[in-house]
Amino acid sequence: MADPLVYLNGQVVAYDEARVPIEDRGLQFADGVYEVVRYYDGRPFRMKEHLERLVRSAAGLELELPSLEGIRAAMDSLVERQGFQDATVYLQITRGAAPRQHGLIEGLTPTVIAIARPAKTVRSRPVLKAITTSDDRWARCYLKTTQLLPNAMAREQAKRLGADDAIFVRDGFIMEASASNIFVVFGDRLVTPTLTNYILAGITRGAVIDIAASLRIKVVEEPISSHLIYSADEVFISGTNSELGPVVEVDGRRIGSGAVGPIFQRIQAGFDAAIHSSQQIGRASCRERV
Amino acid sequence: MADPLVYLNGQVVAYDEARVPIEDRGLQFADGVYEVVRYYDGRPFRMKEHLERLVRSAAGLELELPSLEGIRAAMDSLVERQGFQDATVYLQITRGAAPRQHGLIEGLTPTVIAIARPAKTVRSRPVLKAITTSDDRWARCYLKTTQLLPNAMAREQAKRLGADDAIFVRDGFIMEASASNIFVVFGDRLVTPTLTNYILAGITRGAVIDIAASLRIKVVEEPISSHLIYSADEVFISGTNSELGPVVEVDGRRIGSGAVGPIFQRIQAGFDAAIHSSQQIGRASCRERV
Repeated sequence: MADPLVYLNGQVVAYDEARVPIEDRGLQFADGVYEVVRYYDGRPFRMKEHLERLVRSAAGLELELPSLEGIRAAMDSLVERQGFQDATVYLQITRGAAPRQHGLIEGLTPTVIAIARPAKTVRSRPVLKAITTSDDRWARCYLKTTQLLPNAMAREQAKRLGADDAIFVRDGFIMEASASNIFVVFGDRLVTPTLTNYILAGITRGAVIDIAASLRIKVVEEPISSHLIYSADEVFISGTNSELGPVVEVDGRRIGSGAVGPIFQRIQAGFDAAIHSSQQIGRASCRERV
Repeated sequence: MADPLVYLNGQVVAYDEARVPIEDRGLQFADGVYEVVRYYDGRPFRMKEHLERLVRSAAGLELELPSLEGIRAAMDSLVERQGFQDATVYLQITRGAAPRQHGLIEGLTPTVIAIARPAKTVRSRPVLKAITTSDDRWARCYLKTTQLLPNAMAREQAKRLGADDAIFVRDGFIMEASASNIFVVFGDRLVTPTLTNYILAGITRGAVIDIAASLRIKVVEEPISSHLIYSADEVFISGTNSELGPVVEVDGRRIGSGAVGPIFQRIQAGFDAAIHSSQQIGRASCRERV
């Protein structure tokens, strides 16, 4: 596969030429925010929600964003120009470059990076195995920043234990997976942890809640004690990259029947309908232009 | 001041040309470690300890370091080549560049960056005001990684409240300042928090403990409840950049007499002797070549 083009500070450049100064604060302090946006049939999924979250993350860092229209146009043009239908766009915005010092430094020009890659969209997602692991992340996981080392390490830990993903547990409660939110089915209730400072308000999480409501599935946001997960009927994750992923094993213990469950299948069908059409699902549109 | 030279992956390059790929994992995941080494009279202070800590940090990330001799030579040569006497060298090593994915990815070539800047060494340090703030950092602060956004934000918070630095408090106990360790004097006892996963084993912290022991000052490592700091006789911070800094006010409350205290002055004198001579202080040498 050819190297993708890169949007960097107003210009589209070749991958090999896309470089940032060594004193970019994104590199020295993880001082920046990001988003990953999925495109289906050449159009972004829930772009409005992604941009709204980007604004919230940047506000949390007191990072002044460049024009959202410009950011949006940059992402669209990478997808269009490379002829991608289904694609994932990674967008990163750092505070910019300056001689190293701890304080936030005002007035810098933010570094804006976007990169699009083709994405495979499959109807039947492979089943996943997960482990639980200590949530060692910082306290502001509700902001989508590049402080992702604990996420990377948790993913690696899962891989070494023969699993696909790690579920963060903090103070005995389930938070989210290494790069996605988590849903747990108990009987006829679909439960996901309440949004706190330790949980990112996932865009796909929001879509799942809307889809569940539209399907009259009882969906609840509440704390989930980690020991309860083993007796769940179904577990699945949701994320822009992972889309929806059925988890059939946690810490080596089978979840429910050990196969993809009926609630997951209904949500998956609703999700497939949402991404490949412009129909309205639940309260919000799953397919919206800003 | 002219832009400093930069060491980047085996070459010395001009500041403006020193750039890393946008998919360096240091930029996307804060997946890397760093050190700041102080040079006095053209020679590094406690280089051996810095390199030992670098090895520990990298091991914590399962990041395979390039040769320590090469790293050491790169830092030395930046200082020598630019004719610096007193200088600060910032060294950063990331896991390297690769198309974005969460797992740690083995076999990448690490990115090695070093940059030296002249440093002012003053005998009489200005007095500092500090605030206490919630320690929102991740749980592995004993590793010196670039997950520094909460440190930057705490420093900024201090600045806005008219203070110079922020002291992290976790579960009611004092951890460290935003880029330094903390020492608190109660009567004739010099106390610093016990090293846990939330505290970096500062090189200057180690020097202070050695100096205190050599001066027969009773130095103790133990947990410090945050409310006790206001009734301390003295407070000071220690760090490679900050060296030693007397804190005379915390959260707007005067510490001790509100002036530089006698224990600080004795430690400062011992520190000045250590950095400007090759004498042995305490158990370990404060001036050692590896």
